[in-house]
Amino acid sequence: MTELFDDLSPSPRLLMGPGPVDVYPRVLRAMSVPMLGQFDPEFTEYMNEVMALYRQVFRTQNHWTLLVNGTARSGIEACLSSLVAPGDTVLVPQFGRFGFLLSEICGRVGGKIETIETDWGTTFPVDQIADAVRKHRPKVLAMVHGDTSTTMAQPIEGLAEVCREVGTLLYVDATATLGGMPVEVDAWGIDAISAGLQKCMSGPPGTSPVTLSEAATEAINTRKHIEGGIRPEGYVGASGPRISSNYLDLGMLMDYWSPKRLNHHTESTSMLYAARECARVVLGEGLDAGHTRHALASDALRAGLQAMGLELFGDEANRMANVTGVYIPNACGNGEAVRAQMLSDFGIEIGTSFGHLAGKIWRIGTMGYVCHKPNILRCLSSLDAVLRRNGYDAPVNAGVDAAYKIYEGAGQ
Amino acid sequence: MTELFDDLSPSPRLLMGPGPVDVYPRVLRAMSVPMLGQFDPEFTEYMNEVMALYRQVFRTQNHWTLLVNGTARSGIEACLSSLVAPGDTVLVPQFGRFGFLLSEICGRVGGKIETIETDWGTTFPVDQIADAVRKHRPKVLAMVHGDTSTTMAQPIEGLAEVCREVGTLLYVDATATLGGMPVEVDAWGIDAISAGLQKCMSGPPGTSPVTLSEAATEAINTRKHIEGGIRPEGYVGASGPRISSNYLDLGMLMDYWSPKRLNHHTESTSMLYAARECARVVLGEGLDAGHTRHALASDALRAGLQAMGLELFGDEANRMANVTGVYIPNACGNGEAVRAQMLSDFGIEIGTSFGHLAGKIWRIGTMGYVCHKPNILRCLSSLDAVLRRNGYDAPVNAGVDAAYKIYEGAGQ
Repeated sequence: MTELFDDLSPSPRLLMGPGPVDVYPRVLRAMSVPMLGQFDPEFTEYMNEVMALYRQVFRTQNHWTLLVNGTARSGIEACLSSLVAPGDTVLVPQFGRFGFLLSEICGRVGGKIETIETDWGTTFPVDQIADAVRKHRPKVLAMVHGDTSTTMAQPIEGLAEVCREVGTLLYVDATATLGGMPVEVDAWGIDAISAGLQKCMSGPPGTSPVTLSEAATEAINTRKHIEGGIRPEGYVGASGPRISSNYLDLGMLMDYWSPKRLNHHTESTSMLYAARECARVVLGEGLDAGHTRHALASDALRAGLQAMGLELFGDEANRMANVTGVYIPNACGNGEAVRAQMLSDFGIEIGTSFGHLAGKIWRIGTMGYVCHKPNILRCLSSLDAVLRRNGYDAPVNAGVDAAYKIYEGAGQ
Repeated sequence: MTELFDDLSPSPRLLMGPGPVDVYPRVLRAMSVPMLGQFDPEFTEYMNEVMALYRQVFRTQNHWTLLVNGTARSGIEACLSSLVAPGDTVLVPQFGRFGFLLSEICGRVGGKIETIETDWGTTFPVDQIADAVRKHRPKVLAMVHGDTSTTMAQPIEGLAEVCREVGTLLYVDATATLGGMPVEVDAWGIDAISAGLQKCMSGPPGTSPVTLSEAATEAINTRKHIEGGIRPEGYVGASGPRISSNYLDLGMLMDYWSPKRLNHHTESTSMLYAARECARVVLGEGLDAGHTRHALASDALRAGLQAMGLELFGDEANRMANVTGVYIPNACGNGEAVRAQMLSDFGIEIGTSFGHLAGKIWRIGTMGYVCHKPNILRCLSSLDAVLRRNGYDAPVNAGVDAAYKIYEGAGQ
């Protein structure tokens, strides 16, 4: 018997976890636009526009600015597996869960991994990373920008100098920061960077913007290769070791995004529409204005949480501007009852954490479309009410009042 | 200066190439449904429903039936790179471009590739493949079901017996056939199969349904591994060689789709909504009814093309039911002017081909939502008009009349 289930009808949610978050209505609408063929001139023009839009989002002049058709993780893997060949040394400074991910991806493709570590909740002084680069002289320095697992943002500025000095390529994972904090690809000298849509770009997870410097492009082109079945007679690929993935081979993706339009996958039409619209919304507001909005919302949220007597997690100096870690008060055990009631009774999702922070901190996201005063106030007042029912009494109205005060101080 | 470009506004198209094709309106609408968090009980329930729906679409009892978050090609690579370890022998019978792709993917992960080949436009007798399996005793027999590059469908039934005999796993790429022709996973004894949405499922490209037999699951689990940063203290992974991709590691994807919900990527929310709705539409019509509709439309189209004096490509016995190859008449050169005028003047996309068939045949798709009588008639009458302007005069109204006749013969 055929079982078809019901029409999609999700409950209304306010997504204030570490992502995915609520999607801009314009982006939701873009995804319901009808298909075009992948080689339709109108569609390839949209691909070119996406390249131009993400150059602006990434603040770069890089020609090769394109989408990898998968979630943010696919963009990370496309960059790293295209750059790192078996035996290449990669330095991964780890300050949270996603540093482990970068190490793992590079290890799987045969990279020789060197790491430095710091306590979760802290980041590295730039000098410490520079010393490690000089010591290991890696082919690639692979760096998470904002690690949502710890809510910390690693300063990237200043790393390119030492990378140039020893001939290292600088890769940055900006999944969680792009659109929410400054990400200055050219000014910071980043060679390869990937992101997702589902955080501060306020789109759906499912496609990953990537941009590559000339140096990164050259490195990838030493491994370039055209697929059997579409290669010209007598074709010989580049001499470097073949990239272990076909799907995530950035050399092939560049051919597909070039005027050659050499067929690879079939570009994910609806996700490209979404990515295009995300960029148009974010650039329409203005990157700087967006960053200010995120910083202000975080200030308000943090002031509110502290006024409620809660303790924030991690070094203040390098907190991300779009997600806040807060210790779960003792009265609330591992915090899961509070999270469940926030969701079921107030329609608000907040996050737990990973590894040794699971059950110790909640993570409250203020990303993209979500990151507006009414949502900050709604989150604080709801949390106040739920905590009260779970044995933790904050001073009456203190959280909301403190947040109001921050917004009023900013004239809002 | 910020450049934002215009609002999305693609021209109306009828997509009768080899895919992507027009998406069901219900599926377009599903993609504009708001987000849920990835661990929201409502969302994990939708994931479970997707598993149940695709078991029906694939006609299988396999527990492990899930989505890989990328286009069809990502599902192929997830299956093959999870099954094929360095040094494993893989047999790939190649009858078109996509056989080359399977070989290439397996080669990149270190597989030892054995191939048999047949002319484009033909398929293999089952016995020929069986002999090759007995000769090479591969770990995996990797088989394209319908290869759109040649418009041929390889019979799969009967291959499982020899695979069981020598302990080979049978992988099938059903990207182009699922929903348009019978794909009987359990009855045909398929161990791993992947598909896409952008052909006869009439969804957008961007997520890939996959199902795995117990034997395939066991093989993958010998390489199972939990990622650093979320693994329990003292954890030791399985002893088999690690899968070279993290993103496409089906062992990890199974953990994410299991009640453990072990975090991997962030499931592509909107694409999951789309996949769910594609299955509901296709199952709602009934798989058999859908296959009949595709076969009838192909019959009508082919009768029409032949009545216009055009010659069909490939062996009649094993043509796919959802795409037709037709020789470009001499008068029309490489056929690109005709294709361009079909698109610009009639809003209809038809396909060219790859490799040595490029410029020799057009490929006309009759897939999913497109596959209905009005579109078949519209395509034939438009093609008639365009050919006439390009030096080829078909007998007046012959194409449309012949197609009408087929539909009338079927009582439609």
